[in-house]
Amino acid sequence: MRITAIKEVSVPLEGNVANALVSFAEHDVSLVALETDVIRNGRPVTGYAFDSIGRYAQGGILRDRMIPRLKAASAESLLDASGERFDAAKVLQTVLRNEKPGGHGDRAAAAGAIELAVWDLNAKLADEPAHITIARHFGRQGKREGVNVYAAGGYYYPDESTQRLADEFRGYRELGFDAFKMKIGGATLAQDIARIEAALKVAGEGQRLAVDANGRFDLDTALAYAKAIAPYDLRWYEEIGDPLDYDLNRQVAEVYEGRIATGENLFSVPDVLNLIRFGGMRKGQDIFQMDAGLAYGLTEYARMIDAMERHGFDRAQAFPHGGHLINLHIAVGLELGGCEAYPGVFQPFGGYPPGCGVGGGLVRPTEAAGFGLEEKEALRPWLARLNH
Amino acid sequence: MRITAIKEVSVPLEGNVANALVSFAEHDVSLVALETDVIRNGRPVTGYAFDSIGRYAQGGILRDRMIPRLKAASAESLLDASGERFDAAKVLQTVLRNEKPGGHGDRAAAAGAIELAVWDLNAKLADEPAHITIARHFGRQGKREGVNVYAAGGYYYPDESTQRLADEFRGYRELGFDAFKMKIGGATLAQDIARIEAALKVAGEGQRLAVDANGRFDLDTALAYAKAIAPYDLRWYEEIGDPLDYDLNRQVAEVYEGRIATGENLFSVPDVLNLIRFGGMRKGQDIFQMDAGLAYGLTEYARMIDAMERHGFDRAQAFPHGGHLINLHIAVGLELGGCEAYPGVFQPFGGYPPGCGVGGGLVRPTEAAGFGLEEKEALRPWLARLNH
Repeated sequence: MRITAIKEVSVPLEGNVANALVSFAEHDVSLVALETDVIRNGRPVTGYAFDSIGRYAQGGILRDRMIPRLKAASAESLLDASGERFDAAKVLQTVLRNEKPGGHGDRAAAAGAIELAVWDLNAKLADEPAHITIARHFGRQGKREGVNVYAAGGYYYPDESTQRLADEFRGYRELGFDAFKMKIGGATLAQDIARIEAALKVAGEGQRLAVDANGRFDLDTALAYAKAIAPYDLRWYEEIGDPLDYDLNRQVAEVYEGRIATGENLFSVPDVLNLIRFGGMRKGQDIFQMDAGLAYGLTEYARMIDAMERHGFDRAQAFPHGGHLINLHIAVGLELGGCEAYPGVFQPFGGYPPGCGVGGGLVRPTEAAGFGLEEKEALRPWLARLNH
Repeated sequence: MRITAIKEVSVPLEGNVANALVSFAEHDVSLVALETDVIRNGRPVTGYAFDSIGRYAQGGILRDRMIPRLKAASAESLLDASGERFDAAKVLQTVLRNEKPGGHGDRAAAAGAIELAVWDLNAKLADEPAHITIARHFGRQGKREGVNVYAAGGYYYPDESTQRLADEFRGYRELGFDAFKMKIGGATLAQDIARIEAALKVAGEGQRLAVDANGRFDLDTALAYAKAIAPYDLRWYEEIGDPLDYDLNRQVAEVYEGRIATGENLFSVPDVLNLIRFGGMRKGQDIFQMDAGLAYGLTEYARMIDAMERHGFDRAQAFPHGGHLINLHIAVGLELGGCEAYPGVFQPFGGYPPGCGVGGGLVRPTEAAGFGLEEKEALRPWLARLNH
């Protein structure tokens, strides 16, 4: 059994939204395919994945460094002990050959796309949903009943108004979501408070509304917002300062009683260990949002969860960033706290196909084999393109 | 005045050497050119730079993200207040438009190559060596008499022997170098001690020999080596553990009395601030080796030096990684502790042209305009390729 072709296509994100720091109008995502010599129903079994949402496609690093390393590897060196499945950790090690430590940025996303495609592939070889393959591999039961989910949105739009935000969240509520996340920091504190109050009219209570500063705040602003939002008892206060400013995170954690969430821009175990050691994250309370697709894939992500547990945190504190099918399967398979959903933005990757069933605060994967990306209608033309 | 063309070529590194972690046989470097509409001697004034040595070329990120942003910028938005020079900070901000915080890896090198080319360009517009442009811009005198230098080498070769290492360092001594750096961690501790003793026979004393583990050691190994090398009173003990493992660095610093050096794999101010806050680096003693070409260029590098000084460190503690002409000009212009040289490896980028004059422990740039990359014979064919 071997990989016969490795393909990549750069897919532009649809929409024209912005958080406190960046516009997503020019963002794109690498969708990759690992095609094998296993033929089922007349077609090669193929694993698909992408490097999550919110940073960039990585065609250059994939084509210049990683795909040649993978092609140069012997077929056996990529298989697990049974010889019947691919070994994601070996594939990761192969694509990272001769990479120095440190510098966990774009290459972590490039490697993540390939590593995750191995999980889709293995699940398809076993003809089962990826969360089952994942749970089995890591010795977990999996949360087959579904995981906690919230609708992420509330971006800044060119036509900004609190009415628009409330309408957006009402739309998510009609889709079955009962918790929401919105952006802050792209307007004045007073304007953001008005937006939070508008959103709360839909969310109903603070615990159903999280706010996300996308790493924008300095310490003074972080503390001013902390004080201003404290009375609302919000679900969490996310990515407050620069993602690497562990000291700022610690200082906010010392005064802000509610949950803090961060980690979507930490792309390696050493970075997560620094957050654990220096960031003041509170056991049983604060939220870790690392995202496998941006961070070398599930092999590295599982090591991050291990690092959390070794330091006394609970995997229920992990809510991966991303809001898409791959992280839903990971959250279910690894029994994480939950995941986000982008029902309205970041197409064709955001959100879940109709079969996923959102309700009662939970979302469940379908019975499709692998991550089920083929069930996402907007993705199908891109998957088809990879097949030619 | 405007940039008329932005070109990039991926240049393979010559040689077949390895440190404790990676082989450089497949490494390459991005060489970039910023061509302008200013014509001198019938040719456009052109700034050249590259993304330092030791990680990879970044053609994908340059072509997919950064060059399009730079091309889309108005000519005036890239000039300084005088209108007669390009503004490196504005160019950097332009190429980083819509990039999220965190994830300082490959993109930091891509941006570094472009940002540094602006300094070469500005120096050529002023018809002066880049270190003079740099010193003037940052309000320094510059160390025009030259800066401290050591020859970096001592890699692991397929035909490894202590004789080979001693011969290599003798060759560097004949070139005028009186201090050396060698790799450790790619062999057993006993073998490495034998290599150190062989090298010391050439270096003469411990203060003329640094050792570099390239981030390989776990804490136990780090402490075992610290204990074993302590009697030799070496120049420094470099990149002991994972570059992001600040806690390991601190623990070694607490027991190892000699200098510790690290930072070549930290690519942003937030990363350097974490090293300062959590790494146990000692004021007036330990060595910071951040490298502008891997870390968004000189604009960000100068901010790193500022951060060091604000926290009580001295810029004489800064010895940029890289061993090439660009960092020589930066070390001279910013009055740093010194720089390294790769006289024998990493061609066509490593080392200095004959005119640079190595001796008395110092190296000086020539009078060539800009970084003087044109004086490096092995680079000329590559520069010529960028002109077509």
